[in-house]
Amino acid sequence: MKKGIAASKGYAIGKAFIQEHEEIVITDQKVNDIVEEKQKLHNALDASREQLKKIKEKAVKEMGAEKAEVFEAHITLLDDPEFTGQMEMEIENTKINAMKAVEGVTNTFVMIFESMDDEYMRERAADIKDVSKRIILNLAGKGGDAFSITEENTIVIAHDLTPSDTAQLDRSKVIAFLTNIGGRTSHSAIMARTLEIPAVVGLGDITATVQNGDFVIVDGIKGEVIINPSEEVVNEYKAKRESFIKEQEELKKLIDVKTVTKDGKRVEVCGNIGKPEDVNQVLANGGDGVGLFRTEFLYMDRDSAPTEDEQYDSYRYVLQKMEGKQVVIRTLDIGGDKTLPYLPLPQEMNPFLGYRAIRLCLDRKELFKVQLRALLRASIHGKLAVMFPMISGLEEFNQAKEVVEECKAELRAEGKEYSEEIQWGIMVEIPAAAVYADELAKHVDFFSIGTNDLIQYTLAADRMSEKVSYLYNPMHPAVLRLIKMTIDGAHKHGKWVGMCGEMAGDETAIPTLVEYGLDEFSMSASSILNAKKIIMEQ
Amino acid sequence: MKKGIAASKGYAIGKAFIQEHEEIVITDQKVNDIVEEKQKLHNALDASREQLKKIKEKAVKEMGAEKAEVFEAHITLLDDPEFTGQMEMEIENTKINAMKAVEGVTNTFVMIFESMDDEYMRERAADIKDVSKRIILNLAGKGGDAFSITEENTIVIAHDLTPSDTAQLDRSKVIAFLTNIGGRTSHSAIMARTLEIPAVVGLGDITATVQNGDFVIVDGIKGEVIINPSEEVVNEYKAKRESFIKEQEELKKLIDVKTVTKDGKRVEVCGNIGKPEDVNQVLANGGDGVGLFRTEFLYMDRDSAPTEDEQYDSYRYVLQKMEGKQVVIRTLDIGGDKTLPYLPLPQEMNPFLGYRAIRLCLDRKELFKVQLRALLRASIHGKLAVMFPMISGLEEFNQAKEVVEECKAELRAEGKEYSEEIQWGIMVEIPAAAVYADELAKHVDFFSIGTNDLIQYTLAADRMSEKVSYLYNPMHPAVLRLIKMTIDGAHKHGKWVGMCGEMAGDETAIPTLVEYGLDEFSMSASSILNAKKIIMEQ
Repeated sequence: MKKGIAASKGYAIGKAFIQEHEEIVITDQKVNDIVEEKQKLHNALDASREQLKKIKEKAVKEMGAEKAEVFEAHITLLDDPEFTGQMEMEIENTKINAMKAVEGVTNTFVMIFESMDDEYMRERAADIKDVSKRIILNLAGKGGDAFSITEENTIVIAHDLTPSDTAQLDRSKVIAFLTNIGGRTSHSAIMARTLEIPAVVGLGDITATVQNGDFVIVDGIKGEVIINPSEEVVNEYKAKRESFIKEQEELKKLIDVKTVTKDGKRVEVCGNIGKPEDVNQVLANGGDGVGLFRTEFLYMDRDSAPTEDEQYDSYRYVLQKMEGKQVVIRTLDIGGDKTLPYLPLPQEMNPFLGYRAIRLCLDRKELFKVQLRALLRASIHGKLAVMFPMISGLEEFNQAKEVVEECKAELRAEGKEYSEEIQWGIMVEIPAAAVYADELAKHVDFFSIGTNDLIQYTLAADRMSEKVSYLYNPMHPAVLRLIKMTIDGAHKHGKWVGMCGEMAGDETAIPTLVEYGLDEFSMSASSILNAKKIIMEQ
Repeated sequence: MKKGIAASKGYAIGKAFIQEHEEIVITDQKVNDIVEEKQKLHNALDASREQLKKIKEKAVKEMGAEKAEVFEAHITLLDDPEFTGQMEMEIENTKINAMKAVEGVTNTFVMIFESMDDEYMRERAADIKDVSKRIILNLAGKGGDAFSITEENTIVIAHDLTPSDTAQLDRSKVIAFLTNIGGRTSHSAIMARTLEIPAVVGLGDITATVQNGDFVIVDGIKGEVIINPSEEVVNEYKAKRESFIKEQEELKKLIDVKTVTKDGKRVEVCGNIGKPEDVNQVLANGGDGVGLFRTEFLYMDRDSAPTEDEQYDSYRYVLQKMEGKQVVIRTLDIGGDKTLPYLPLPQEMNPFLGYRAIRLCLDRKELFKVQLRALLRASIHGKLAVMFPMISGLEEFNQAKEVVEECKAELRAEGKEYSEEIQWGIMVEIPAAAVYADELAKHVDFFSIGTNDLIQYTLAADRMSEKVSYLYNPMHPAVLRLIKMTIDGAHKHGKWVGMCGEMAGDETAIPTLVEYGLDEFSMSASSILNAKKIIMEQ
């Protein structure tokens, strides 16, 4: 038995197919004919583009337009002068061969993205690696043919699967996959969850442990792999698989069910979203609303901040799609580890304890007002709640509300509509806010507990720092106390409390949170149904 | 009236003497004769050494041996191959002129030291600049003569005063000084406090505002300067000066008085120390004990960690000097912003939330054990309490205590003595520790609240980050609540609580802390008497 990271739930029993790791040796060799080398690069880019178009078409059919968007992003990368243009320049300036140029530029980009503590940004590093691998394979004349699987019930085993490898898996034949590297949030793991096939990643050396044709059991719940099991074990897992499938079907029945605890308390189970389109996944999984719309993604991948109208369109889209269900939008949380090319930030020794989120927005009112005006204007299209991130005290909340009042006055003068029903709340993610939540609760409409940051600050441990990440513990008694203080403080003044950190979707934490009286749980769409089930059992 | 930073208490009324800012133009010019240029450098180093010896002699006489030590450090710097050796190499390798070489090497060193969030390390940057300025002046043939003041009641006004400028001030004539730059913890400010002459620093452009011979009032309490005041104002300040002097004399009467509040509660007022010798200042100011001995300074300025015997000597010295008064020694708090050349640390995005203090010590047991063995052995020479920094949970405290038990077993086997009366406590500086202090209190002998870090983590604001330092507020209601929770939690289980952050010596905070029932206040020696007075008024 091999233990890895459970990346996508479910059980699979089938035959191993080892995807060979294509080793291409890249040399430092210089070239004489720059023009020819640049032409080679262009041919490889063209071939890559054609392949990606086909993969995208397949992905649209099998996984839906949204999940296929990643391949549109890959195609865009191929035309990005900052990326492929840089490769061309490398060839021209240093006479280096095309493969080395691709590798060099890729490494620089990957390093930048991987150093960021942000799931989305790290995924972007995976995209860049994927595209780069494709270009290099095409330069080596080995691109184009995805591994072809002929047998049914195949379990694909690879060192790593790129998003495009994953998208090309033939769903009628591939029932699971296993990889040596990767984590729960790696792109291939996310795709496996979308494809609803079990997957275990981060297995270390599974490609060396398993032989082609081996009989393999994949336990995508525990993150385990059993190689050539006895008939008894196979039967055991067949039974597990069956009951899992049944369970999944049961879960789907909860889509339209209101979540009520055994005590009769109604609890909202909502989804977190990054891009406006993510709202569809929330609806498909029976979300009661959007508990966190991270607006920073509207600001990324651009040369300038989004205009008021662009933002208005995004907010309106989400509000209209949710048809009266509540949408909690968080104002810009940039700074810390998230930066924008058009918004230079000061160099800080500890960016997590620095100039970010509401601190930055109150300091750059012109930027903040564009977002607030867009939110106010969109408010007439649904049930909007707005929350400010990184609030440490009442003064910051009051200052933010003052800017809101300014925007309202402007809109009135311009004859533009907004709703007076908007709820105004704060993220409770700084220990200070939790410690005196009972005072803050007098002034806000609601709290949303951001556990990821709250835990880091409460324990003074950056979970991205390898040496201290072991200290990051959502169930630490002090963390639990702060959560309880926040909920009690809000309820004392008749306000509601949500939670939008990872802890809200954590099966082991939900019972405690229900006991504390948390009113709203917000999580990734794929966790909603299971959370509903657990909450209803409390 | 000009407002600056109050650097040293008291009032002075006298005539302005502007110290001209010696501008030396340093060029990029290369030299032909390397040997000659190196000789120039050596001559300048020799001259600097001679001058510094004289300054040191004067300082020993006027400020005592300890304060004069800084000049011994300057002399050592002149012989440091890492420093002056580097300058020589610069000349040899790049044929650059000696002044430029001195400037270049200095800038590199200063940059490193100034980037650290540590008073002591930033002072070291000031030392380096001071020495460098002296070498350059000597290279320019302008070194050696300190500005000579002939009139009594002179107020020296300068852009900045180096430690050696300050030490050379003729106390029979100079009654105060004012500078454009500097802060409360700059070296010149510290020296002014030792010389007991009022000083206001960080005045911006006081050298341009005041004329030579102007009549000036210095208010070293409010940090204000009044230029050419009316007779009425002069009389007002004469009265203030008189009552201040009287007050100081009254304070000195408190040296041997036990501090008791109006309610009859006995409160300990102790001193914080960095170097063993600092203990003398604590005693001179009537400290009830040492509330914080920062041991990292034993580890600094060295190529390797101090041996067990070296540490034993330092701890024993302090314990013996204190003659049975309690000495609280904090185990190594390295990492974060404090690094050691022989202890490479991982690169972290947020070092304040990373690998430091007890986290590092538990991970590097061999290093930790040397210190613990030295502490145990020294414990027989006085009343020792040991505390661990950056404790976030019970597990860390228990692990640390296990290492202590290991050391005790070793010492017993070696036939070496230690006391069983040592108290073992923790720093409460991570919000988690304050939040569940009542649980931790069951297991520790005492708490010491480290407000500097506690405030930073509670408000998620690095006070060294210019953009967010305004958030750092010791009187924030959440911070006060955590302090109260810590004290209440400890008292519930019959344990005592000290405080060793800057807040303990803050006049505006002391009444609240007394009200909360804080048992021990520890601060810089110079604040002890005033704190005693305020506590006795509560």
